[in-house]
Amino acid sequence: MERIAHAERFAEIIGAGNVLTSPEDKAPFLVEWRDLYQGVTPMVLRPGSTEEVSRVMAYAHENGIKVVPQGGNTGLVGGQIPLENGEEIVLSLARMNIIRNVDPEGFTITVDSGVVLETLQIEAEKADRLFPLSLGAQGSCQIGGNISTNAGGTAVLAYGNTRDLVLGLEVVLANGDVWNGLRTLRKDNTGYDLKQLFIGAEGTLGIITAASLKLFPKPKKLEAAFIGLTSPHAALKLFSLAKAQAGPVLTGFEIMPRVGVEFCMSHLAGARDPLENPHNWYVLMELSSGSEAFPIRDLMEAILGDAFEAGLVEDAAFAQNLSQVKDFWHIRHGMSEVQKEEGGSIKHDVSVPVASIPDFLDRAIAAVTDFVPGCRPVPFGHLGDGNIHFNVSQPTGADKEDYLSRWDEMNTIVHGIVQEFGGSISAEHGIGRLKRDLLQGVKSELELDLMRRIKSTIDPDNILNPGCVLSKTR
Amino acid sequence: MERIAHAERFAEIIGAGNVLTSPEDKAPFLVEWRDLYQGVTPMVLRPGSTEEVSRVMAYAHENGIKVVPQGGNTGLVGGQIPLENGEEIVLSLARMNIIRNVDPEGFTITVDSGVVLETLQIEAEKADRLFPLSLGAQGSCQIGGNISTNAGGTAVLAYGNTRDLVLGLEVVLANGDVWNGLRTLRKDNTGYDLKQLFIGAEGTLGIITAASLKLFPKPKKLEAAFIGLTSPHAALKLFSLAKAQAGPVLTGFEIMPRVGVEFCMSHLAGARDPLENPHNWYVLMELSSGSEAFPIRDLMEAILGDAFEAGLVEDAAFAQNLSQVKDFWHIRHGMSEVQKEEGGSIKHDVSVPVASIPDFLDRAIAAVTDFVPGCRPVPFGHLGDGNIHFNVSQPTGADKEDYLSRWDEMNTIVHGIVQEFGGSISAEHGIGRLKRDLLQGVKSELELDLMRRIKSTIDPDNILNPGCVLSKTR
Repeated sequence: MERIAHAERFAEIIGAGNVLTSPEDKAPFLVEWRDLYQGVTPMVLRPGSTEEVSRVMAYAHENGIKVVPQGGNTGLVGGQIPLENGEEIVLSLARMNIIRNVDPEGFTITVDSGVVLETLQIEAEKADRLFPLSLGAQGSCQIGGNISTNAGGTAVLAYGNTRDLVLGLEVVLANGDVWNGLRTLRKDNTGYDLKQLFIGAEGTLGIITAASLKLFPKPKKLEAAFIGLTSPHAALKLFSLAKAQAGPVLTGFEIMPRVGVEFCMSHLAGARDPLENPHNWYVLMELSSGSEAFPIRDLMEAILGDAFEAGLVEDAAFAQNLSQVKDFWHIRHGMSEVQKEEGGSIKHDVSVPVASIPDFLDRAIAAVTDFVPGCRPVPFGHLGDGNIHFNVSQPTGADKEDYLSRWDEMNTIVHGIVQEFGGSISAEHGIGRLKRDLLQGVKSELELDLMRRIKSTIDPDNILNPGCVLSKTR
Repeated sequence: MERIAHAERFAEIIGAGNVLTSPEDKAPFLVEWRDLYQGVTPMVLRPGSTEEVSRVMAYAHENGIKVVPQGGNTGLVGGQIPLENGEEIVLSLARMNIIRNVDPEGFTITVDSGVVLETLQIEAEKADRLFPLSLGAQGSCQIGGNISTNAGGTAVLAYGNTRDLVLGLEVVLANGDVWNGLRTLRKDNTGYDLKQLFIGAEGTLGIITAASLKLFPKPKKLEAAFIGLTSPHAALKLFSLAKAQAGPVLTGFEIMPRVGVEFCMSHLAGARDPLENPHNWYVLMELSSGSEAFPIRDLMEAILGDAFEAGLVEDAAFAQNLSQVKDFWHIRHGMSEVQKEEGGSIKHDVSVPVASIPDFLDRAIAAVTDFVPGCRPVPFGHLGDGNIHFNVSQPTGADKEDYLSRWDEMNTIVHGIVQEFGGSISAEHGIGRLKRDLLQGVKSELELDLMRRIKSTIDPDNILNPGCVLSKTR
């Protein structure tokens, strides 16, 4: 009865067609692609404007209704899925998809938060500009979700995380107040930088309804090399050498182990080993430049020449054209999905200081192999960002369920080593529901307390995404 | 009596020699170089370690003693100077000057907050790296102060503000608790990004005792051009064209008016007009690259060739060697001091969206000329950051005091126009004491309220730099 009254009131604000209450209508908003959670909600709301979001939140706040904001529903830690207790409504930003302003001269773009990342990339390209954020889910994830999770992706090395791309935000607070922080300034030192609060807060502090973002010159030239080497130690030295010479032109530096490349050769359509002989480790290095005048092929050759001379590199293949660049990336992007073909895989999204990557890998590979003899570690990813997807495939022929039952134990081992290196147990994906309890174990009590104080001063009634990030113990 | 007891207790913590109470000893900490404030304090404390800062703050907190943290005392808005009521003690970080770690492979450096900026630059250089933050006061300002004020400077265009250079912080909170957020990770999405709170907070939320910072490849090649053009509109078009072609290689783009260049020719030792004929406006454009392989001279010529063709540029001089690069920057850096020789100057440190710079200049120049006929606007600065030092020299022969008495009125006019363009009344220098009351007028009540809520949850007893940033009305 009360629920019906709420739905009616919300219908007055956003239109009855935008209040979804039937199981079929709600279903797509309640599952996520890793199949970890199956949320329950009385209704999904689809407001169409900032003002509607504001009025929805004012009513929710007044009535103590908890709200889970949702973008493209591509998150990997369940942060966008309501709890199973059925007490939370879902607020989808999908209908808010207006490109508000493109400013090529000032290198900025201002958009509604429900704009799909790929749409945003295309709008930038139309203006001969680049919006660099790039990740697997870009065809369906929304920029509001990217900002709320401080998304990473493959362009972080040169352009930073999503946080670094945000100039201003418009945010609806828990009580419906609208904070207009939608500025496009490159410099502004007038008090606390409030937008930082909402970036990466996973919808627990406010609902982002619009953003002003940085644009960059569109790359005009691209070079890639697929490099074979003996160890991550050599890869780190190569990274250091390459970055010193190429600086911001070094736009990709990805590491992969032999076993991962073998998996791709076995299971990935169209994959071909770019190098004649096998190597223990591989690096995919990319240079790109907005300037036609930059001979980046010469630079690539100079870097690899120095690296050969220093004994860091065993072999290297240069992409001869854009199609070969894509082939190299095809292997790197396929590295995650091919693991499915090899049985169970226990995953970790971790980071350590860049210079600690080789030692971390030595330690972690030894530890998991010790824990499950015969397991096949496939650590790969953004060496240049210190961010490794430390995935571990089951021993050949082992029982999958039996192997996966050791997920938490292996996590504990790997995360313990990550912490010894001062690393992070969630480099890219955030905390959400999946790592909420883990967070308690890795953060100091003081840090958790500061987070809780911020949460309770910005959302005192705890109605915004209360199941996520922080525990309910306060 | 109580004061003596406090001093004795502090002496037990940090040593009697580090508790300064005599007027001569305290004097250098109580005035700043613009001579706007003359602070009063019972004592200046000079702790030598994080633990000492922690114990000092624990005692201060327990006894309700208000504390003003101070770095190199080079701030331009009085944020480092205690109030005249004599109720605040000064806590100088100067003795905390250890370089904790340099990591060239990972491109990071970790230092105490009292390390002088120039020392930090030199340490980076020794490791063949660049710490890009660069500003006039670098020989005496300290990195803790730079972080607390989110300093800008001349390298923002390519490397960002200080905020963008910080990877981790160690902070002593108001009650003496030490938050160890001294991480060197490039990616870490584990809850709220607490370090953002303390960056730019001007010592009102915590005392920064150490920082982990990003390093970059050291530039190996440098080119500069001194360019004459007709208007800021042409300068904006040139900027857009240059950035599109040069991207991160464009490391400087500064605008200057003819009158400023004339002032330099009259008053600046060693200054010589790089161009044969006078032009209404000038741009100093710099390209630099960490890669020897990049022909940045060719790129500079290509950009200016396109600009000539498009009719954007009247004339340009290329620096033929490093000495000429310095000559060009000598004019730009002299632009502030030469104004002193021309009588009174009313100053504004403002920013607007980059693409609005020309229209802002048209409006603001017309408005101040209307307000004080005969006044000579000398707006100059970082066009590429949207940050203009909008300084206005008095009419030739006018009475200086009489002119300067109109400071506040002119500020109101200029800041009003800044706000119409969605700009900032403090692009670089912060709020401190100087702009605290102004802040109330330019921020929404909601934004001020959010700031006050953060202040009161992080420093509930309001003992950290209580005279700065926010008003005392809550």
